[in-house]
Amino acid sequence: MSSTSGEIFKITTFGESHGPGVGVVVEGIPGGLVLDVERIQQELTRRRPGQNYLTTPRKEEDRLEILSGLYEGRTLGTPLTIFVTNTNQRSTDYADLETIYRPSHADYTYEIKYGYRTPHGGGRASVRETIGRVAAGAIAAQILEAELGVQAIAYVASIGPVLLPEDILPESRMQVDESLVRCPDASTSAEMIKHIEKIKKEGDSTGGTIKVIVRGVPPGLGDPVFSKLEADLARACLSIPACKGFESGSGFAGTLLRGSEHNDPFVPREEGKPPLLSTTSNRSGGIQGGISNGMPITLRLAFKPTATIHQEQMSVNTRGEAVRFLAGGRHDPCVLPRAVPIVEAAVHLTLIDAFFRQRAVHPDWYRRFRKTDGR
Amino acid sequence: MSSTSGEIFKITTFGESHGPGVGVVVEGIPGGLVLDVERIQQELTRRRPGQNYLTTPRKEEDRLEILSGLYEGRTLGTPLTIFVTNTNQRSTDYADLETIYRPSHADYTYEIKYGYRTPHGGGRASVRETIGRVAAGAIAAQILEAELGVQAIAYVASIGPVLLPEDILPESRMQVDESLVRCPDASTSAEMIKHIEKIKKEGDSTGGTIKVIVRGVPPGLGDPVFSKLEADLARACLSIPACKGFESGSGFAGTLLRGSEHNDPFVPREEGKPPLLSTTSNRSGGIQGGISNGMPITLRLAFKPTATIHQEQMSVNTRGEAVRFLAGGRHDPCVLPRAVPIVEAAVHLTLIDAFFRQRAVHPDWYRRFRKTDGR
Amino acid sequence: MSSTSGEIFKITTFGESHGPGVGVVVEGIPGGLVLDVERIQQELTRRRPGQNYLTTPRKEEDRLEILSGLYEGRTLGTPLTIFVTNTNQRSTDYADLETIYRPSHADYTYEIKYGYRTPHGGGRASVRETIGRVAAGAIAAQILEAELGVQAIAYVASIGPVLLPEDILPESRMQVDESLVRCPDASTSAEMIKHIEKIKKEGDSTGGTIKVIVRGVPPGLGDPVFSKLEADLARACLSIPACKGFESGSGFAGTLLRGSEHNDPFVPREEGKPPLLSTTSNRSGGIQGGISNGMPITLRLAFKPTATIHQEQMSVNTRGEAVRFLAGGRHDPCVLPRAVPIVEAAVHLTLIDAFFRQRAVHPDWYRRFRKTDGR
Amino acid sequence: MSSTSGEIFKITTFGESHGPGVGVVVEGIPGGLVLDVERIQQELTRRRPGQNYLTTPRKEEDRLEILSGLYEGRTLGTPLTIFVTNTNQRSTDYADLETIYRPSHADYTYEIKYGYRTPHGGGRASVRETIGRVAAGAIAAQILEAELGVQAIAYVASIGPVLLPEDILPESRMQVDESLVRCPDASTSAEMIKHIEKIKKEGDSTGGTIKVIVRGVPPGLGDPVFSKLEADLARACLSIPACKGFESGSGFAGTLLRGSEHNDPFVPREEGKPPLLSTTSNRSGGIQGGISNGMPITLRLAFKPTATIHQEQMSVNTRGEAVRFLAGGRHDPCVLPRAVPIVEAAVHLTLIDAFFRQRAVHPDWYRRFRKTDGR
Repeated sequence: MSSTSGEIFKITTFGESHGPGVGVVVEGIPGGLVLDVERIQQELTRRRPGQNYLTTPRKEEDRLEILSGLYEGRTLGTPLTIFVTNTNQRSTDYADLETIYRPSHADYTYEIKYGYRTPHGGGRASVRETIGRVAAGAIAAQILEAELGVQAIAYVASIGPVLLPEDILPESRMQVDESLVRCPDASTSAEMIKHIEKIKKEGDSTGGTIKVIVRGVPPGLGDPVFSKLEADLARACLSIPACKGFESGSGFAGTLLRGSEHNDPFVPREEGKPPLLSTTSNRSGGIQGGISNGMPITLRLAFKPTATIHQEQMSVNTRGEAVRFLAGGRHDPCVLPRAVPIVEAAVHLTLIDAFFRQRAVHPDWYRRFRKTDGR
Repeated sequence: MSSTSGEIFKITTFGESHGPGVGVVVEGIPGGLVLDVERIQQELTRRRPGQNYLTTPRKEEDRLEILSGLYEGRTLGTPLTIFVTNTNQRSTDYADLETIYRPSHADYTYEIKYGYRTPHGGGRASVRETIGRVAAGAIAAQILEAELGVQAIAYVASIGPVLLPEDILPESRMQVDESLVRCPDASTSAEMIKHIEKIKKEGDSTGGTIKVIVRGVPPGLGDPVFSKLEADLARACLSIPACKGFESGSGFAGTLLRGSEHNDPFVPREEGKPPLLSTTSNRSGGIQGGISNGMPITLRLAFKPTATIHQEQMSVNTRGEAVRFLAGGRHDPCVLPRAVPIVEAAVHLTLIDAFFRQRAVHPDWYRRFRKTDGR
Repeated sequence: MSSTSGEIFKITTFGESHGPGVGVVVEGIPGGLVLDVERIQQELTRRRPGQNYLTTPRKEEDRLEILSGLYEGRTLGTPLTIFVTNTNQRSTDYADLETIYRPSHADYTYEIKYGYRTPHGGGRASVRETIGRVAAGAIAAQILEAELGVQAIAYVASIGPVLLPEDILPESRMQVDESLVRCPDASTSAEMIKHIEKIKKEGDSTGGTIKVIVRGVPPGLGDPVFSKLEADLARACLSIPACKGFESGSGFAGTLLRGSEHNDPFVPREEGKPPLLSTTSNRSGGIQGGISNGMPITLRLAFKPTATIHQEQMSVNTRGEAVRFLAGGRHDPCVLPRAVPIVEAAVHLTLIDAFFRQRAVHPDWYRRFRKTDGR
Repeated sequence: MSSTSGEIFKITTFGESHGPGVGVVVEGIPGGLVLDVERIQQELTRRRPGQNYLTTPRKEEDRLEILSGLYEGRTLGTPLTIFVTNTNQRSTDYADLETIYRPSHADYTYEIKYGYRTPHGGGRASVRETIGRVAAGAIAAQILEAELGVQAIAYVASIGPVLLPEDILPESRMQVDESLVRCPDASTSAEMIKHIEKIKKEGDSTGGTIKVIVRGVPPGLGDPVFSKLEADLARACLSIPACKGFESGSGFAGTLLRGSEHNDPFVPREEGKPPLLSTTSNRSGGIQGGISNGMPITLRLAFKPTATIHQEQMSVNTRGEAVRFLAGGRHDPCVLPRAVPIVEAAVHLTLIDAFFRQRAVHPDWYRRFRKTDGR
């Protein structure tokens, strides 16, 4: 169903942007794990609004509270619940919206679906819902890194027409975070910032693309057919608000190549039964037949421009009458930089579930690919 | 898990391309339904190899057998099982492959994952697996059409560099099927055919894109967060072999627009509580906040060129040694036309489950949007 | 997984008895429902410890807070989260337990399973976990009553050797609650109370049985095979702490009868296609072939005596040494009366999910059996 | 949903008793496993009708066919499908039943639920459906035995009023199978056989109880709350046709004991962190807090007398008229002996899923409790 995801490492998010708060229940965390809570908080802070002058002026501390599953810093193996109180609810800003279906928002579809909705904007459609995923993803990331050495790094690859050159790849999350717009190149970042400033001044908004590179993924994750790694990653990414496109490996550009150009030649990497292989190119994006092949997983995501703008628009009110309106309230001209930790969380959550499913059935595989014997 | 999909209308596919056959178990079909079995067979026939001289010479009748769930032409409400016997297993063709990991195939990843594999190519990674989905999708399509008037039409929008002009939209599945390459435009089709013939002669392969338009979708389908309609559609589509990219609505191109250009203005359509609305543009692709808004759903998918080519390639064998090889056996230079019914099935299967989930909880919604009172 | 139950009306409980609190996330609630929050609180109050001198002296208010899913008294259709803060954590009482595995408690099994545990007794094994289910069950009960007229009434049918005569059936929950031990017969109740007082004085504990009668269930709920109504009810009931036995209809006693004695003869009840039937006896307990037949559903459950007693016992400590110990802390000599609302919640949660699954696929069934057209 | 069970080791059964056949799709089998197909066939043969003069004269070979998932005797890790053709469909016997709802059968409930049914008796309600589970259970049993040394033995503990003395426990499945009624005691078996002969002569039927002892279960299987081992075992057992009661450990009899009598004292068994313990009694039935404690798991199940009898009965026909009728056709006076392998399958299927879930999250646990390092 809607708010639950994962089969073994399973999360359930809850909360509206204008209720008491938002949170997540995480099942399937191993017991006895020393949890780095500060690292979870860091990811929430990377995601929170009001980080700098470019984003929405909505300022929220987004301090997490742990309601269950932890005792003296170690996980109990039971559901771990994280809750973040909403501290900045300016519902008066939204008074007018009660009667207007804002264009390209979820106001109308929620009302048709449920027959009822909270008038204050998004409810569950708000990007605030992603807090739960980011928190859960930060737990998944700790386990994946310790057990397998997996690390996903997302970064902004374009904002509107401003593109990061294809050949620039970030080496670390720190490198990404050095940029205000989370683009791992100083000069492209500067251009992107300039673009956002302009858009903001005009009361408009912009979209862009985010790329992801996941290093350290062992071969063998993902299942044939409906749980192909690409399929599950696509589902996780397209469940992020404003995401409208997904590519794995060569993606749409790959459709222009011939098979002889697109195939990734194998070369030997490590002896064994079976031997480990590398490929000399990576148009498969680290996934073949829906299963990881040990090369870096590469993804690219499209985010549409934010629907909230400070310009007069046409729409319809709840009585069915055409109206003109000008949205007040806070407004984020570009969500891309804040979406980076959300995308990483989506990727980590997908990978840990694939990992646990594989380990459940194939312990020999785990013996071969776990990073250390120490756990 | 891997081979099961859906929550209420649930399918489980099974079978390898070189075993006795392939099939599907479908749960969640209403009892007492007069099933149009011939229509299921038609979809299998649209999907089967060897339809014309352009595709693989592997000729299979792909005649379906119903093993359970039907009695005197009506569904029993119990699991309906469809089985298709494999009649054309030329496993000798694959003798060499036993020891070679073919580039960009699933040979290597399957062996790493399971520690064992059938040497004859694909196993579950074969496009033959999709027979089960196509059969199940044809059942879903019958229900969706009768209950809601929903119809998904997929069509080939590009093959390699040959593109269908953006403004051409098919009106019917028949119009699509008139073209050998399932492209709803005669002159583009002719170019595509020429391109495939050339590629085939060179022993190479080509990819392309498929577009989908789904008409008649009522507003209110899809769930917030993890079961957003885009998320579930993306998962279904990216689980199709060779699919590497997914777009909903404006997709990647939409990232270049501003919010003021991208937002879809609402206009009144029908009175009621709440009123029904239309939008004057459809960059949302019929989905807002993960929920259908009543406008046509529009998707675009990327398919990479087939990995099997008739040219010498470098690879590695199971002993870990670098080798040169030239694949024998059958070879399909372009799977796009055959992927059209598979994509439609994926879409119908996603929509029927969203429909049943919505009807389960919101019967008033169903009373408003069902097509006829006659059922 | 462990803490999630249900397919459409889905609940996830969380929280340890000695952490910040316990709660539940409920998915699948229809939007726009006027929720009777006071009734949810009433059920929590029926369940809470310290209701009278017979139960544990642990006094908790168990006041619920709603963290999500409700706006101005109406449900939003989104996950509804209920949280109850733990106010009475006397963890010092448990100091000794840190090193002792208490007999017939979950201390040992939790430690083996997770490699780590909270030393303060139960964690998730505590009956405190059931708060979430009781809250969710109270929501399910409201919907079931309004939509179908279903009502489950549970009652204490024996405490140790003191048995309620077979022919006494409660007419209402109020009648049950008039008794301090929730037994719908004054004289049996008096005996039960006397028995508990005696057991308590001796520092011992007692088990007993709970019966359930569910009236108003329409025929057609429950699915063949793995989701037979009995199977799902059994799972829900045996997931209640201390429950060790389950019977549906004639249960174990029915094994002594012959088919000719056991079969329930049908008689006509109401015309229609198909006609509605009654049975003149009800040894099937309202369920045939795993599907409700319209007669009252009858269940009987066994609850073992509470493991915590105030008598010296032998056990083993965490160093593997045999030890003698006398448990301090609070102690509930008989949990049966408090288990009554928990059992009702388990039954309501099972039935609402079966109801929603049936409505999802068979709207005509719903049209026939819904109580009013008013919804 | 109805016909699918398990989270990682997942089975989907299909087929009606009067259609082409019945079968099962099994997901979650490790790849590369040498499957003992003959052992699967043996379990089907233990289950099949017509084994001896006491059971139904319906004679079916019940030869299995493997449709997918196996290659040269080894599992592929992909869904393994087993199919058994129905060879003995005497549908003419059932001609009259088309219009009569047989008492205590599923005819009426199926018709109400689905609005349609096959007139030939059971459909999915037939015990023939259990073929799929028995086949899947035989695969699970092989893995459980090899990996952990687990073995479940079920046996008939009573038929009508004829009871096996409590202290007799079978040591092996062979010992159980030596008895025509699968009761591990020669003199009780003789009495049971006499009882069945008498019942059969009178055209009547009888119920009884089956007990299960599971040896070799390591501590730590089962999850708190909704997947308590008892809860999942109860669900699996009560999904077997005719099962109306379930007990774990002391069950209903345990409700008469006091805590001081019921608690199982721990004693040291093996050093370690944590140490392994035994209990000197086993009223917990090997399960504490829903998790196995390493002692044998003990269950007891109630089976009602078969509904089909050769005596005149009152019922109602599909036009809603009261009728008298005498059922023709085949008739099994006592299903208990044939239910023994079905119960074992239910137990093995539950345990393997709990095992895989535990291994998925806690590899250290697996390292400690796996039987051999050889796998």
